[in-house]
Amino acid sequence: MRKIIGGITAPQGFLSSGVKAGIKKSGKEDIALIYSEVIASAAAVFTTNAMAAAPIIVSREHLKQGELKAIIINSGCANACTGQKGLEDASLMAEYTAKLLNTPKEKILVSSTGIIGDLLPMDKIKKGIEMAVAELSVDGYGNTMKGIMTTDTFEKTCAYEFNLGYKTCRIAGIAKGAGMIHPNMATMLSYITTDVNIDKAVLNEALFEAVNLSFNMISIDGDTSTNDTVCIMANGLSGNEYISSKDHPHYLKFLEVLKEVCLYLAQQVVRDGEGATKFIEINVKNTIDFNQAKQIAMSIAKSPLVKTAFFGQDPNWGRILCATGYSGITVDPTKVSLTIGDIKIVENGLGAITDKSKLKEVMSAKNIKVTVDINNGSAEATVWTCDFSYEYVKINGEYHT
Amino acid sequence: MRKIIGGITAPQGFLSSGVKAGIKKSGKEDIALIYSEVIASAAAVFTTNAMAAAPIIVSREHLKQGELKAIIINSGCANACTGQKGLEDASLMAEYTAKLLNTPKEKILVSSTGIIGDLLPMDKIKKGIEMAVAELSVDGYGNTMKGIMTTDTFEKTCAYEFNLGYKTCRIAGIAKGAGMIHPNMATMLSYITTDVNIDKAVLNEALFEAVNLSFNMISIDGDTSTNDTVCIMANGLSGNEYISSKDHPHYLKFLEVLKEVCLYLAQQVVRDGEGATKFIEINVKNTIDFNQAKQIAMSIAKSPLVKTAFFGQDPNWGRILCATGYSGITVDPTKVSLTIGDIKIVENGLGAITDKSKLKEVMSAKNIKVTVDINNGSAEATVWTCDFSYEYVKINGEYHT
Repeated sequence: MRKIIGGITAPQGFLSSGVKAGIKKSGKEDIALIYSEVIASAAAVFTTNAMAAAPIIVSREHLKQGELKAIIINSGCANACTGQKGLEDASLMAEYTAKLLNTPKEKILVSSTGIIGDLLPMDKIKKGIEMAVAELSVDGYGNTMKGIMTTDTFEKTCAYEFNLGYKTCRIAGIAKGAGMIHPNMATMLSYITTDVNIDKAVLNEALFEAVNLSFNMISIDGDTSTNDTVCIMANGLSGNEYISSKDHPHYLKFLEVLKEVCLYLAQQVVRDGEGATKFIEINVKNTIDFNQAKQIAMSIAKSPLVKTAFFGQDPNWGRILCATGYSGITVDPTKVSLTIGDIKIVENGLGAITDKSKLKEVMSAKNIKVTVDINNGSAEATVWTCDFSYEYVKINGEYHT
Repeated sequence: MRKIIGGITAPQGFLSSGVKAGIKKSGKEDIALIYSEVIASAAAVFTTNAMAAAPIIVSREHLKQGELKAIIINSGCANACTGQKGLEDASLMAEYTAKLLNTPKEKILVSSTGIIGDLLPMDKIKKGIEMAVAELSVDGYGNTMKGIMTTDTFEKTCAYEFNLGYKTCRIAGIAKGAGMIHPNMATMLSYITTDVNIDKAVLNEALFEAVNLSFNMISIDGDTSTNDTVCIMANGLSGNEYISSKDHPHYLKFLEVLKEVCLYLAQQVVRDGEGATKFIEINVKNTIDFNQAKQIAMSIAKSPLVKTAFFGQDPNWGRILCATGYSGITVDPTKVSLTIGDIKIVENGLGAITDKSKLKEVMSAKNIKVTVDINNGSAEATVWTCDFSYEYVKINGEYHT
């Protein structure tokens, strides 16, 4: 597997675009379209939020066939908490896109992101869709990325090339953050394209597995959005031998690359967390099972006291142990060890720092690795998070108005 | 019941003190002592954090007898994550206090609050205890309050007088906040004194019930501390008819006043939440049971996006519905209504605001009431929280260093 230059259109047979439809106050790109020249196998995971937005409800329905021709996305308005009218609008968005692309509306996935509670400005959406269809191209990927961004400060995209048998295949993905990020089965918006030839059900399982170890392992603010979506389209144009089951010799190779794409994008989302100044990896190890390790790691990742301590570059490690203690998992305090960077801070529940100045140095790094050893088993989990800064408060105190 | 002037020594037979032992860098009061002239019935609830601090472990043991003569507290050092040495120090703190007060050490409750991970400076603690014992008085309550404070910006204390039969009784309480507040069975530090004559087991049940509807219903930052303690001492000196069981005719009157004290102190803790600029009451109603309502209310109260929106006085109500949606409780989005202040914002899942300027006015108030109607039962719960401000980040980014 090798990383290549290019965006969401790097795999064969994909076109995309991003246009300015006037939905965002800023006037930036706010409609994005991703298109496959042939019908693609498709799979997606959606938010578990009970207040799931209208596009989620519509897309869940469309995805039942496991096939997509295109994905239409708008930013600036989430079309969430919009009732029956919202459902009709989401459906119309798919229908209008489908008509222009000459395909059934069930072959269109719809996504929206932005403010909750407002209705979609359908006139602008329609005009935007027309423009997006007209501008579809292999070179459109930069604008596509812009079209899905809200408070993101940089673009999150990657593309890889790899071989399956004698065929060269590609996979590419984009993602947006940057707040309301605490995935639970699914996450913010991310779209992945590939020209691999693979069975729908197998694609679905691969996506589920890849998401569980990437997007489902990040938290920015503990808020699970109403609009989270990760969707993959596989159009088969690379001509590789059809991956008909998980036992096919090429399946694991494909899964490995897909995991890499998801992990890269998920980590990019964290790096661009609202107001983030630090990228923090939390590894919890030696628990009875993976879920225990994840629950403890997430408890630490979500703690505002831990997050502000990292922002303040403050070696207040007691807060990490405190969050470990209230995670809901039974731990023996006298067995817990904590390492930050390469410095052992706590050994068997006791402070073990001899040189506090070295710890301050570790805390001042931009990338920080925290390891918590529970010493009660052999499972482990790693989650990624960022710090809580003044800027987070500023961004979220002022986003709406 | 009537509120009276006075502090923790308002009930008969209680003395207290607060002294400067040099534990806090600031040089302020850091040792507090609360003393009953006679052995008092006592009950306490402690943190559920698995990393419970040494004083919690020692005090849990002492409380098994249900009787106390005094409570010794230090601030500035939490004696948490301090292993065997920490346990010995906590025990020594009780022992030393007991010796000077001429009582068994099991009659002493020990509390500590402050930074996690450091060992108690035992020389200072001992000297402080000596001073505190020497300074015990009815007028000592102001310094006692100061002695338990850390980042608190104001004192939290109240006293009530009420009649049980022909006897006049009193109850008084103090509490400290102001961060690491998300009680789970218990909460930060709070001490309550009363001269009511009541059975230990009954006192225990009364405290448990009062705490569950007050301290257990507040959240400042979602962090459940390692040192949370609420303790009540009842010395019986008012001479009221002995309350021997929950069926005694005076029990409910006593419980009512105790609830009032706990609720008042819990709300004061929220009002003094680190960096708080708003006091927010969240009432979730018409759920199947109390726990559902509490779980949804806490999900809203803990959401950083909701809290920053209140700080920004930003009527971004979608975030409240989003947090309702990911609370883990099944809700029907088309039945949910939301009211802020006296303005109906959402009706049956749909935005219902006609006048956005009026909503901005409501959001600019210091005290804000949020009501979420789930329309799926008849139970309800109310929790109290505060907003997330720049100041919260500042306080917690800089607390240690």
